Amino acid sequence: MTAVAGIHPVREALRAGRVLDRVHVAKEAHGPRVEEIVALCRERGIPVRFEARAALDRMVKNLPHQGVVAFGAAEKYADLKDFVDKEGVLVVLDGVEDPHNLGAIVRTAHAAGALGVVIPERRAAGLTETVAKAAAGALSVLPVIRVTNINRALETLKEAGFWVFGLDERGTQMHTEAEFGAKAVVVLGGEGGGLHAQVRKQCDFLLRIPMAGQIASLNVSVAAGVVLFEWRRRAGFGG
Amino acid sequence: MTAVAGIHPVREALRAGRVLDRVHVAKEAHGPRVEEIVALCRERGIPVRFEARAALDRMVKNLPHQGVVAFGAAEKYADLKDFVDKEGVLVVLDGVEDPHNLGAIVRTAHAAGALGVVIPERRAAGLTETVAKAAAGALSVLPVIRVTNINRALETLKEAGFWVFGLDERGTQMHTEAEFGAKAVVVLGGEGGGLHAQVRKQCDFLLRIPMAGQIASLNVSVAAGVVLFEWRRRAGFGG
Repeated sequence: MTAVAGIHPVREALRAGRVLDRVHVAKEAHGPRVEEIVALCRERGIPVRFEARAALDRMVKNLPHQGVVAFGAAEKYADLKDFVDKEGVLVVLDGVEDPHNLGAIVRTAHAAGALGVVIPERRAAGLTETVAKAAAGALSVLPVIRVTNINRALETLKEAGFWVFGLDERGTQMHTEAEFGAKAVVVLGGEGGGLHAQVRKQCDFLLRIPMAGQIASLNVSVAAGVVLFEWRRRAGFGG
Repeated sequence: MTAVAGIHPVREALRAGRVLDRVHVAKEAHGPRVEEIVALCRERGIPVRFEARAALDRMVKNLPHQGVVAFGAAEKYADLKDFVDKEGVLVVLDGVEDPHNLGAIVRTAHAAGALGVVIPERRAAGLTETVAKAAAGALSVLPVIRVTNINRALETLKEAGFWVFGLDERGTQMHTEAEFGAKAVVVLGGEGGGLHAQVRKQCDFLLRIPMAGQIASLNVSVAAGVVLFEWRRRAGFGG
């Protein structure tokens, strides 16, 4: 059972048709957005329990919940082999450990129209409530694929016709120059460390985002947004 | 006195030549990046104090610091009138309250080569350590302008020849279609609420980022990155 906390994430999980077991609403919570959640639950036959805010605080520890917490089946991981025949862009994360960043990347990848996000199994944390909250509902709709070995996953994708683009500050091509083609993989490294040496070697191209200023850097979820929406623009969805 | 916590933010503050009073390093902290910080302090004559990690924990409460905390003069705000004659892009925040988002936007705006970030005075929190950490050093180099009234600030900028582009999900133009010109203002609303009605009226253009999927949305700092790097690409710095 996984908890989803906060008005926006719960509403989006409901709208996306995610299977929810029950929704807890704080007695003190009011307003049209809370009422919409209650109405959606009634429509879909999901039990709503009105409780003291303190009870909700305890359910999700110190996570902000705005008076709304939902519980549902744990998110299921998707299987890489279901993606090898697809066209589009896959996002591969190599060492992104921060759950806020993971959630924000899932949110961004969904908004950009990516096929899914690939994460390594060694991320013990998995898809926690913090990830779900940062993903603002996108975790219910965007496939997340967990693989034992990122290098092997990249090999599989390359054999299936994907071009692999690693984002790296030492990249030789600007992200605006990339020829993404019909099947592309964008690999993002962790904050600070960047791509692992072995993963970097697997990349067909290393891209960099040209920045202003000497000390400039980008949060990994912002970098994901810049590259994925450039892909989207070039793919003709963005005008 | 303001604290800067974490290896990357402290190193960038040092590299940027920010005036620091002292740097605290945990006795347990090691590695080339920590040594670089110590060397930079020695070079610049900034006192380094080696202390127990617990002492650093107390200095910055529960903020992650990776064994390095610096203290320096509080950040100074810049004055809007120093920007009216400049060319480039200014970022105006209308209701972005979350300090992580504010910091991430400062970091992104600096990386994109923006002139500065304008925030309303009613943000009581100001430029806290959380903002500085999320800005990863950029707060030391990118001007932040605090104004009493966002609407009046936009009027001043329009009189000075800036075009005002508000990011709004009901926007009529895609961000990739905007003609930013030499002097542009990008206005970002808060998470959830979006732009205030009065601010929206002040905008010359309302832009939207075309997204995939029904429930898609972007974190405000990611949206800032997508729009500012599109501006940067179109301004010819990004290829």
